[in-house]
Amino acid sequence: MIIDDLTIPIVLAPMAGGPSTPELTAAVTRAGGFGFLAAGYLSAADTAARIAATRSATDAPFGVNLFVPGPATPAAEFADYLTELARDNEVGTAKYDTDDWDAKLDLLVADPVAAVSCTFGCPTAAEIARLHDAGSEVWVTVTSPAEAAIAVERGADVLVAQGAEAGGHRATFVDRVADDATDPLGLIALLQLLRAATDRPIVATGGLSTGAGIAAALAAGAAAAQLGTVFLRCPEAGTNPVHRAALTASTPTMLTRAFTGRRARGLRNEFMAEHTATAPVAYPEIHYATAPLRAAARSAGNPDKVNLWAGQTHTLAPELPAGELVRTLAAETKTALNAALSRRIQDC
Amino acid sequence: MIIDDLTIPIVLAPMAGGPSTPELTAAVTRAGGFGFLAAGYLSAADTAARIAATRSATDAPFGVNLFVPGPATPAAEFADYLTELARDNEVGTAKYDTDDWDAKLDLLVADPVAAVSCTFGCPTAAEIARLHDAGSEVWVTVTSPAEAAIAVERGADVLVAQGAEAGGHRATFVDRVADDATDPLGLIALLQLLRAATDRPIVATGGLSTGAGIAAALAAGAAAAQLGTVFLRCPEAGTNPVHRAALTASTPTMLTRAFTGRRARGLRNEFMAEHTATAPVAYPEIHYATAPLRAAARSAGNPDKVNLWAGQTHTLAPELPAGELVRTLAAETKTALNAALSRRIQDC
Repeated sequence: MIIDDLTIPIVLAPMAGGPSTPELTAAVTRAGGFGFLAAGYLSAADTAARIAATRSATDAPFGVNLFVPGPATPAAEFADYLTELARDNEVGTAKYDTDDWDAKLDLLVADPVAAVSCTFGCPTAAEIARLHDAGSEVWVTVTSPAEAAIAVERGADVLVAQGAEAGGHRATFVDRVADDATDPLGLIALLQLLRAATDRPIVATGGLSTGAGIAAALAAGAAAAQLGTVFLRCPEAGTNPVHRAALTASTPTMLTRAFTGRRARGLRNEFMAEHTATAPVAYPEIHYATAPLRAAARSAGNPDKVNLWAGQTHTLAPELPAGELVRTLAAETKTALNAALSRRIQDC
Repeated sequence: MIIDDLTIPIVLAPMAGGPSTPELTAAVTRAGGFGFLAAGYLSAADTAARIAATRSATDAPFGVNLFVPGPATPAAEFADYLTELARDNEVGTAKYDTDDWDAKLDLLVADPVAAVSCTFGCPTAAEIARLHDAGSEVWVTVTSPAEAAIAVERGADVLVAQGAEAGGHRATFVDRVADDATDPLGLIALLQLLRAATDRPIVATGGLSTGAGIAAALAAGAAAAQLGTVFLRCPEAGTNPVHRAALTASTPTMLTRAFTGRRARGLRNEFMAEHTATAPVAYPEIHYATAPLRAAARSAGNPDKVNLWAGQTHTLAPELPAGELVRTLAAETKTALNAALSRRIQDC
């Protein structure tokens, strides 16, 4: 297993839509962590180009993350929302696609990477078997014991346990408004529930930005920790300047479907405040509809209409080269575990 | 400090409204943990009686938890909600009180316990000083770095960091509907943010039901872990039978103001589903208004109108005597920390 061979139990989260770059993946990998490259929002051809660029920067193994496609949403279910958005914004065409799923799967079977991780759902048992036959580990991101049970049953090698604290999209297999009242499980709660249900290796993610946070994930039974937000300010990350600048303020985060039609956590801004209550479940349709207004706001340097994805500990993200950050976090992790173990606990 | 002297880094959460009993507090204390006795909802006289009962069951130090009173809510702000409730329920008088705050403070100054912990707000600096002069430590429950800064500034000795995962009432100093969109910080996120802001000792609480969870809290920099839900099925707990039975099902939890007018986490049931959207901020007025209907449902064994407070890992609560549970959790904690530390981490 990849995580058994890592000398530093840190995994770079994929972070599709800009922040993920071959340079960032390679830098984390070279420092002793394991890097994922995001393939979400990319065609199979662009994915192949980024894999090649990563390979030219490191000989070490790395992974690729895919979005598992869900069903299309009937236009009637988001027509009102488009009308609402169009009042104050230039709105794009709300189209459906599978994010080039079949072609990306073919690519990864023909030219495998060490690990393929998935989010937004679980591949079928047959798809997982194809990736296994190609020599790849399959990691499936889960947010509940019920999702973990599906992933284990279909043959996932590793469960990436995403806590409520995580920035960006919730990895939930099916996004439902009815589930919003039952708010997502916090990371330590999720890890305890998963550890009671399965012995499959777990990589913990969500709100981890310090060595103490990583140590907590390991103590709760994770084999490694996956971090995203903490890398957003690294020079190697493709984080846009508006996003980069916003991260340092102590702005609270919130969950919203306003930008993409799928629940995601980001820094609270005007667009989220105005549209979260009415935004429907309609991914990727709403993602495409809001793309032009987000692009315009990024160009104008206006953070109020940009999706500023961030986890709950975003203020702790330092401006450091990724390799240095990985080494600092690893040293902090050791220190935190040793400090915890130095606590006198009566022999029971 | 109390937490430095504990041989087991486990604190019993107070759990007002039934589950807290002198027997439970004494059992946890005798096993080497630190027990809190809930004084919320009790008069000063009843609090004195429970302190006496606890002292007759153990010579070891224990603590008392108080609800810090907030302001009264004008009746106009909850009149519609009372009308809504009265359609299908017998509703009680929506009255305001301070939960006998002044008298309980006088009691604890005259006849001090080892620690006074507070929830729903922070005592004034003068009130904290009175408790200090009486020889008590003052622990203040916080849910954000901003609340922690207030508690530290006023002289709190220990911060009880309550994560989003916690069962029962949110300890937030001021409950505001406007803050609901910015969902509460998960425990590990909160611990990382607090550790970056203060070196005051922290006791972690929220969704911790296993030794691995306690180990995670310690690894994240907490001095001890406070657990509540995991003790609800102990024979010494005063948990009512409806609540006790409901805990074993994998019912999801949610946050609601429907029962008390203050946000709290419990097992989802009919009453929560029907009334969460309209319930106002009005504590303790709504607590009193719903008291008769909750009492009737408890008597009738009907879980659909009872406040089934529970944290996100409620399914992991075992039916064990409290002392045995404390010893089991302590042993698991050691095992989890040793396992995490056995992970090879490159020297950086």
